[in-house]
Amino acid sequence: MIKAKAYAARDEKTDLAPWDFERREVGPHDVQFDILYCGVCHSDLHQIKNDWFPGIFPMVPGHEIVGRVVKVGNHVTKFKVGDLAATGCMVDSCQVCENCKQDLEQYCLEGSTQTYNSMERDGSMPTYGGYSSTIVVREEFVLSLKEGVDLAAVAPLLCAGITTYSPLRHWKVGKGHKLAVLGLGGLGHMGVKFGVAFGAEVTVLSTSPAKEEDAKKLGAHHFVVTKDPEQIKAAMGTFDFILDTVSAPHDFNMYLSLLRTNGVMICVGVPPEPAQVAAFSLLGGRKSLAGSGIGGIKETQEMLDFCAENNIVSDIELIDIKDVTESYKRMEKGDVRYRFVIDMKTL
Amino acid sequence: MIKAKAYAARDEKTDLAPWDFERREVGPHDVQFDILYCGVCHSDLHQIKNDWFPGIFPMVPGHEIVGRVVKVGNHVTKFKVGDLAATGCMVDSCQVCENCKQDLEQYCLEGSTQTYNSMERDGSMPTYGGYSSTIVVREEFVLSLKEGVDLAAVAPLLCAGITTYSPLRHWKVGKGHKLAVLGLGGLGHMGVKFGVAFGAEVTVLSTSPAKEEDAKKLGAHHFVVTKDPEQIKAAMGTFDFILDTVSAPHDFNMYLSLLRTNGVMICVGVPPEPAQVAAFSLLGGRKSLAGSGIGGIKETQEMLDFCAENNIVSDIELIDIKDVTESYKRMEKGDVRYRFVIDMKTL
Repeated sequence: MIKAKAYAARDEKTDLAPWDFERREVGPHDVQFDILYCGVCHSDLHQIKNDWFPGIFPMVPGHEIVGRVVKVGNHVTKFKVGDLAATGCMVDSCQVCENCKQDLEQYCLEGSTQTYNSMERDGSMPTYGGYSSTIVVREEFVLSLKEGVDLAAVAPLLCAGITTYSPLRHWKVGKGHKLAVLGLGGLGHMGVKFGVAFGAEVTVLSTSPAKEEDAKKLGAHHFVVTKDPEQIKAAMGTFDFILDTVSAPHDFNMYLSLLRTNGVMICVGVPPEPAQVAAFSLLGGRKSLAGSGIGGIKETQEMLDFCAENNIVSDIELIDIKDVTESYKRMEKGDVRYRFVIDMKTL
Repeated sequence: MIKAKAYAARDEKTDLAPWDFERREVGPHDVQFDILYCGVCHSDLHQIKNDWFPGIFPMVPGHEIVGRVVKVGNHVTKFKVGDLAATGCMVDSCQVCENCKQDLEQYCLEGSTQTYNSMERDGSMPTYGGYSSTIVVREEFVLSLKEGVDLAAVAPLLCAGITTYSPLRHWKVGKGHKLAVLGLGGLGHMGVKFGVAFGAEVTVLSTSPAKEEDAKKLGAHHFVVTKDPEQIKAAMGTFDFILDTVSAPHDFNMYLSLLRTNGVMICVGVPPEPAQVAAFSLLGGRKSLAGSGIGGIKETQEMLDFCAENNIVSDIELIDIKDVTESYKRMEKGDVRYRFVIDMKTL
């Protein structure tokens, strides 16, 4: 077994604290890489607090992971020691179902193995995430990074990046489309960058007027303060797509009214309570409320390559791991522009 | 003005009763036709009961209307006296917005004029529906029928027919698709007929085991009793599309779980309360919950022609107009196979 250090939650009531544990040995198809940076995702906090389902404790969160390879299995062909490597929200899947065969491992019909708070596919042990010194991942779920990129700012692409890139690609959002990005947080600010990169006319919808300047700096063409009835009225029926990145409760019918005929509102955030959707909100203009979850491995690699070619990274605040609990508090208040990333050498 | 007889609701608490009223004179672009048959739609009941919004009373319901032309305006070119004619849910729209110009009058950006319980576009008077002796409609909103069709059984195509035809066409449902039709009522039974005609593998989802035989007679390939947990379990993740025709409250998350990855649940019914949709129900397989409202005039004519060519009509029970209140009671219990149609000569 491989000794590893981490910050872990012992239970849903306790703050993260240092924890020593062991990872599995590097198997013939595995890549081990030492972790340089790990992004802090809102879902880390949801999971250590058991917001969605009872978690597996001790829990080592973190699924926006970049590092450098220190060991590879005999059969590994894509990586060698010294290469940059990255892992996102999944570390395994069945690989044989119709979705896996179509590079949609995130929708694996047997369920993909999550990077943490999940069980390894052989059921032998829990998975542990990226708030740790080193990680062992099956080769197929390790992504490649180009040398020279800003590794800390690349880390959030592994979740916030692919989660917004994938639906915009799937629904072919681009030139001629009016795209609204609802919420300007970790996901939202990537949605803006991708929407602009794909040629769409991008509007940020936010409760916070203070974010207008930032939205424009990120490339957004317009900004709508959602608490202002006049601005909402003017925006009604204008968007082809709304990328909804908000995981707090919000008024879905109001946002659906901002869509044009045939418009699609794509949810990538997970509010704690079900959306309340009036039938007329959909029937009134043949509208759709859709959902999208992260992206497949092939598409994640495509996204990383696209970002490298187009100089797209996440806007981050680099933190020491001892400050992670403080970062959660600020994240809950929306006080982060736009993603905390842990410098793992502070572990 | 043109004298007309009707059955009308005086207010939301009173049963329909005979009422004499006047329709507008036939203008240069108008067609007047005497009504032979009018279908009874669940929305007639919703509207006379003010279920959706406060209605305009006295209210003459009915928007599945077929008859024979008795007078045409000077500028009318498509119809002459003696022709068969039909009208559905709309009698007017702005005709100039981007939706109207794309033959999507049902999504007219200024709002289409409903056949009843609406105001004429000039604001001069309310519109009155098909439970009446005669009607005056702008030429563009009058549909053509081929001689020789079963007029009583054609009437429900004007609402139940187009409401199911249009989304199946829009989402290109056909060969290779597994389509579930949720609810086997007026809309549902037309959804089954169209789904089968378009080449889809059709399953009826119903709470009522007693409807299995009928579903199969209508052409459905499979039948799932939705109250049976075993049958629901077996159906999970199997449908490309669900056409949801139910206007009673129901469990949207359960039905969304029956969709395959990328599946679409299309709502054409209007439940009284908002759907409760969990984010994970959509994210878990990039699913969509969509809505669709009737269809445009061009598409309605296409549907009528398709039905004439393929011998598709509605399954109906012909009633006398004096029995309309009784028919509402049976409709509310789902006790109709599958549409009541009023024989207007009983007026």
